Amino acid sequence: MPAQQRTGLWLIGARGSVATTAAVGLLALRARVAGPTGCVTELPAFAGTPLPCWDELVLGGHDLVHTPLEKRAEQLAHAGMFGPAVLAAVRSGLSEVDSEIRDGYHPATHTGAQASAAERLSVDLRTFAQRHELARVVVVDVSSTEAPCPHLPEHDDLDALETALADPARSVLPPSSLAAYAALQAGCSYVGFTPSAGITLPALQKLAEGQGLPYAGCDGKTGETLLRTALAPMFSARALKVRSWSGTNLLGGGDGVTLADPVTVASKLESKARGLAALLGEDVTAPLHIDHVPDLGEVKTAWDHVSFEGFLGAQMNLQFTWTGYDSALAAPLVLDLARLVAAAHAAGQRGALTELGFFFKDPLGSDEHRFAEQTARLISWAGSL
Amino acid sequence: MPAQQRTGLWLIGARGSVATTAAVGLLALRARVAGPTGCVTELPAFAGTPLPCWDELVLGGHDLVHTPLEKRAEQLAHAGMFGPAVLAAVRSGLSEVDSEIRDGYHPATHTGAQASAAERLSVDLRTFAQRHELARVVVVDVSSTEAPCPHLPEHDDLDALETALADPARSVLPPSSLAAYAALQAGCSYVGFTPSAGITLPALQKLAEGQGLPYAGCDGKTGETLLRTALAPMFSARALKVRSWSGTNLLGGGDGVTLADPVTVASKLESKARGLAALLGEDVTAPLHIDHVPDLGEVKTAWDHVSFEGFLGAQMNLQFTWTGYDSALAAPLVLDLARLVAAAHAAGQRGALTELGFFFKDPLGSDEHRFAEQTARLISWAGSL
Amino acid sequence: MPAQQRTGLWLIGARGSVATTAAVGLLALRARVAGPTGCVTELPAFAGTPLPCWDELVLGGHDLVHTPLEKRAEQLAHAGMFGPAVLAAVRSGLSEVDSEIRDGYHPATHTGAQASAAERLSVDLRTFAQRHELARVVVVDVSSTEAPCPHLPEHDDLDALETALADPARSVLPPSSLAAYAALQAGCSYVGFTPSAGITLPALQKLAEGQGLPYAGCDGKTGETLLRTALAPMFSARALKVRSWSGTNLLGGGDGVTLADPVTVASKLESKARGLAALLGEDVTAPLHIDHVPDLGEVKTAWDHVSFEGFLGAQMNLQFTWTGYDSALAAPLVLDLARLVAAAHAAGQRGALTELGFFFKDPLGSDEHRFAEQTARLISWAGSL
Amino acid sequence: MPAQQRTGLWLIGARGSVATTAAVGLLALRARVAGPTGCVTELPAFAGTPLPCWDELVLGGHDLVHTPLEKRAEQLAHAGMFGPAVLAAVRSGLSEVDSEIRDGYHPATHTGAQASAAERLSVDLRTFAQRHELARVVVVDVSSTEAPCPHLPEHDDLDALETALADPARSVLPPSSLAAYAALQAGCSYVGFTPSAGITLPALQKLAEGQGLPYAGCDGKTGETLLRTALAPMFSARALKVRSWSGTNLLGGGDGVTLADPVTVASKLESKARGLAALLGEDVTAPLHIDHVPDLGEVKTAWDHVSFEGFLGAQMNLQFTWTGYDSALAAPLVLDLARLVAAAHAAGQRGALTELGFFFKDPLGSDEHRFAEQTARLISWAGSL
Repeated sequence: MPAQQRTGLWLIGARGSVATTAAVGLLALRARVAGPTGCVTELPAFAGTPLPCWDELVLGGHDLVHTPLEKRAEQLAHAGMFGPAVLAAVRSGLSEVDSEIRDGYHPATHTGAQASAAERLSVDLRTFAQRHELARVVVVDVSSTEAPCPHLPEHDDLDALETALADPARSVLPPSSLAAYAALQAGCSYVGFTPSAGITLPALQKLAEGQGLPYAGCDGKTGETLLRTALAPMFSARALKVRSWSGTNLLGGGDGVTLADPVTVASKLESKARGLAALLGEDVTAPLHIDHVPDLGEVKTAWDHVSFEGFLGAQMNLQFTWTGYDSALAAPLVLDLARLVAAAHAAGQRGALTELGFFFKDPLGSDEHRFAEQTARLISWAGSL
Repeated sequence: MPAQQRTGLWLIGARGSVATTAAVGLLALRARVAGPTGCVTELPAFAGTPLPCWDELVLGGHDLVHTPLEKRAEQLAHAGMFGPAVLAAVRSGLSEVDSEIRDGYHPATHTGAQASAAERLSVDLRTFAQRHELARVVVVDVSSTEAPCPHLPEHDDLDALETALADPARSVLPPSSLAAYAALQAGCSYVGFTPSAGITLPALQKLAEGQGLPYAGCDGKTGETLLRTALAPMFSARALKVRSWSGTNLLGGGDGVTLADPVTVASKLESKARGLAALLGEDVTAPLHIDHVPDLGEVKTAWDHVSFEGFLGAQMNLQFTWTGYDSALAAPLVLDLARLVAAAHAAGQRGALTELGFFFKDPLGSDEHRFAEQTARLISWAGSL
Repeated sequence: MPAQQRTGLWLIGARGSVATTAAVGLLALRARVAGPTGCVTELPAFAGTPLPCWDELVLGGHDLVHTPLEKRAEQLAHAGMFGPAVLAAVRSGLSEVDSEIRDGYHPATHTGAQASAAERLSVDLRTFAQRHELARVVVVDVSSTEAPCPHLPEHDDLDALETALADPARSVLPPSSLAAYAALQAGCSYVGFTPSAGITLPALQKLAEGQGLPYAGCDGKTGETLLRTALAPMFSARALKVRSWSGTNLLGGGDGVTLADPVTVASKLESKARGLAALLGEDVTAPLHIDHVPDLGEVKTAWDHVSFEGFLGAQMNLQFTWTGYDSALAAPLVLDLARLVAAAHAAGQRGALTELGFFFKDPLGSDEHRFAEQTARLISWAGSL
Repeated sequence: MPAQQRTGLWLIGARGSVATTAAVGLLALRARVAGPTGCVTELPAFAGTPLPCWDELVLGGHDLVHTPLEKRAEQLAHAGMFGPAVLAAVRSGLSEVDSEIRDGYHPATHTGAQASAAERLSVDLRTFAQRHELARVVVVDVSSTEAPCPHLPEHDDLDALETALADPARSVLPPSSLAAYAALQAGCSYVGFTPSAGITLPALQKLAEGQGLPYAGCDGKTGETLLRTALAPMFSARALKVRSWSGTNLLGGGDGVTLADPVTVASKLESKARGLAALLGEDVTAPLHIDHVPDLGEVKTAWDHVSFEGFLGAQMNLQFTWTGYDSALAAPLVLDLARLVAAAHAAGQRGALTELGFFFKDPLGSDEHRFAEQTARLISWAGSL
């Protein structure tokens, strides 16, 4: 990527915890009040990859709410995620980012055809790019998880989809997919960091190919699943037979509320379960729960109990508890993805970036879930850009 | 390796828990009353490697005690490691193995020069090989951990070592190293499955090279360290900064007694600590304890607490508890090592088999501790034999 | 209670894991191949209470299945709950118990009015008592948990209930309550060791009063809830504010299957939740799950995460994992209850034995859930008999 | 206690984490920016006890360091123990407390007889009481744990002790005991909140009796031991046989440094171990470690593994992890003790206040370690004042 190419990072859900943390973090990195802990692209292995530097990233986004980022950042600081020095250093920067956030799309507040909503979103992206003289924009969905989206024939056929979008009587795309459609129409690459439908619909993937745009997803891998993809290959390599892998997730924050809804949580649980079966090569008993526990605040805790059989049928087990700030785990990966997808776009790559499976619970275009293999693929790919 | 080449597996500590479990397991595999769970060399990746099959392995060994294997096996069955059907199927086979166990070496009971003790051990190995028409013998040390061995100049110089061994007034080698010396003199390859000195002395490694013999070690990786080598690379790959990694091990069985001695445990703790620093690329606070808790019987439990820092300095942690039958974890690896080292020997390999680091806490000749990388190296190497 | 008064212990669900373990245990205690670990009534505090001794207890029961107890005991031994020596010592005794087990009641297989079914069950109890010259019989329900029972007006009015029972067209009592009715009609006291409706219906409690019979329940407290009732008072006494108490239960065995049904599990979860609110004096966030994980066999594991607030709002937490053999925890309490309820009956007590709350998740007639207070009450009451 | 009697709380170690938290907390309670969570004496059970109210407590103390309390409080706020609003509300109050802190005694900096040091400390206490017109002063030792103190004959005999104290060549009392001596000489009651020798020496207890002063100790019970004293009675009441109770403590803060010294830690480990044996009625295998893990900051984490045997010898286990802010757990108890000991003093009680065992790992004058019983005793005693 040529030097001096400014890159936009446009966040769907720009006032949520993950987006706020990404904004605080980017500003803190620029102000040098925080180091790049948690930023994968700052590891030595990526030194030769032509990535936009922190100063070249410009933030904007869509959201439905209007709470100022500064206020959201205060809440996160109060929750213990970062200290007052960081907050003080980024306050003015957050106001600037605030001025780049536009109203998102929600079916309940939109009248008219979905095409007109998409057009509005696209215009927001194009004017953002022009205003800041951006070489390109990466759109990343970090909004709340949607309920699973029923499949429609139009999801498989781009022409049929566009006909339906133009029909004011129909609502064929969930908000995450409408955002992806708008991004592609505006010439932006797209990353689905949630389990929502987003870019997973075949018609949208065809559009991305046609537009020459890369995309990646789905569902950022930041906790329990990260551990599972690091640990399950260990059992396989040692010929130990996992018999059950039970899990419970306690979430305090934003997504906890959303996931308290049993319909919505289905997306998340499906996304988590697919990986485990793929990793272990067979279905095992794997009960999995996500509970909303508000007093945990921004913290999430996962408990996993793995029962396995060893030599001569010996019954053994592994338990782990993972406790972390959900947004502090996710936000640096969002910055990493923006840099890597921008670099891929600059290098002319299009379609699913399968080498980014490292970042996702449910990697698009890849069935490789083993974390060490994903790491090796990512580094090799980044070295080739 | 040509077919029909019978291979000896000679166990130092042949009546201990690991050796007994290996014997029960091998006999159970032959009798088809147990499957190969836990046996790495039975994975599809090793299908093309010319390994001796279970029927081609012949067991023998040295030990200082005379408790019949059958009685030891009853104790292990009683502890819940395997069921009565397995025990019934292997009883007569255990008597046969018993008849191949000879008195080991212990400085307190030996009179005369260490050279004569070594010669006696070598003769045991040679006659074992002749009696069973073995193509080769792999000696594996699974005896109790020794106290750390003070360094002597003779450990670095084979000639000086042999002069000292011939001197009845001196005792220059700890039992594990004397056993390694005897093995090499008898033309046998050697595997150190404990943290004892064994083959780690430079003079012995020179002897192995001279004899054209392969060797491997040290200290089988079966629990806490296995998990550490699977998990630490995950933190590194995600640019998360591990700040402390604290561990406590509760051991019920054999090695628990030995390791209750603070001098002896030093070997084990050093072996464990070296890997962690290598994995994380820096020293972190890493208190580590091994406690003997007799009521746990054959079970060991390890608790690890990993404190790490993420984006913007967020403090997070991972805890895990690993509970397993120590010998059920170790024994199949002993069988795997016998097969792999025999195949390497047959293929003309000599010196440290660095590709076997997968099996060890403190891999000889390698500073690669990352489990996924060790797995890939092992499989690649096995495919080349 | 006068000496030499033989006492019957009649188990509903007499071939289940808990009943089988109780039978094995009673026979092992008599044969002196096992000590009374887990038997509360053998503690010194009960030395002066006139309890039937182990030799005076006679076992019988109802069940719907016909698997011999000996076979069930073999399964439990195989699962590691007790050793082969115990099994060998009790085999013949189990056959005798087997001969005292009669077919239980199930609505699907019974034709005619429920009254006739109850009469059949009562006759089984009366002839059991006569055959063995028993001074009295305690009926204990250890059968699988039933789905919650919809409330009917007849449950509150004994006359109306009996009219309905006589009507072949109606089925007003769930099996557990029909068993309780039959027990009371036969002059037997009754203990509900499950969360099923059993004796909780007011009409049945009135019948018990009328018959001069004592009863106790509900739902044996053997694991997670036992810990909660020991720990929650600690938080209260220290003025620490519990903000959430999340739990996950993994069950391998019998009740695991039953509780995999979301309707049935509702009984159990309600029973567990009531206590927590009572203990903490307010409702807290308390998500709770019960999962069936067959490979755990007879073992159950519970993980609890307690988030609490301390001085100046400091956020802290406690986590625990409890791993045990469900039936080994429950069975000695069943024997204890038989002895204590028999002694209460002999002493002329009638109605709810509120001092037995120590044994139950949902103590009948008491809202004292604090375990230490329950212990003190039990001991004081036992001393008064 | 008559109303309007102002009470001094004099802290040995007045600039440490516990003392600073106590000061912040008392000021926050007065300013009504924090509630009394964690303050036992604010529970309804203590409503009738004539305790000094928060406004009647006056703080002062001894310390060897001069870091302002305000700076220490900033560190604690930064560590997440309390929020910026609390800090802001107490800043000016902390300066006032600062002005009441005097130099403590340390053998390395004192010249002359210990008697003269004691006299200086006593004068500090007397002038503090006069300056603030205090009805009485309670001295509480919250300084760092001392190494175990070798027993001297003078510790048993007050006359001999005073002779030795007057001898400039001798140093017969450790600092904690010198502080206790000075407190008693100044007419102040004394509480040992650490495992240091303090008031445990018989000569000092005789002095307290002679002076008509009450005292209490030793070693505040705030974490692992608190849980042990809540849980161990549960095992006993259920006749379950604890076979081992293993523990590991990870401490980040102040006492962690002190306890990293193996000699000093001996005091603490002895104090912890005594209780467990008393609770279980027999010695069990109980390895116990305290590690200093600086990155944990003000947090401490304890992991306990309890292995127990149930009916028919079934092997089961309980594990728990307790994670909390050490000072947030301890500080409210220090305030509670000041109020309760002042009330006892006002009521004319003298000698060991055995009913305060609720607060201590190693209760002076009592061998009751069961937490529920300690709670009942405390409440009953407080009701009698």
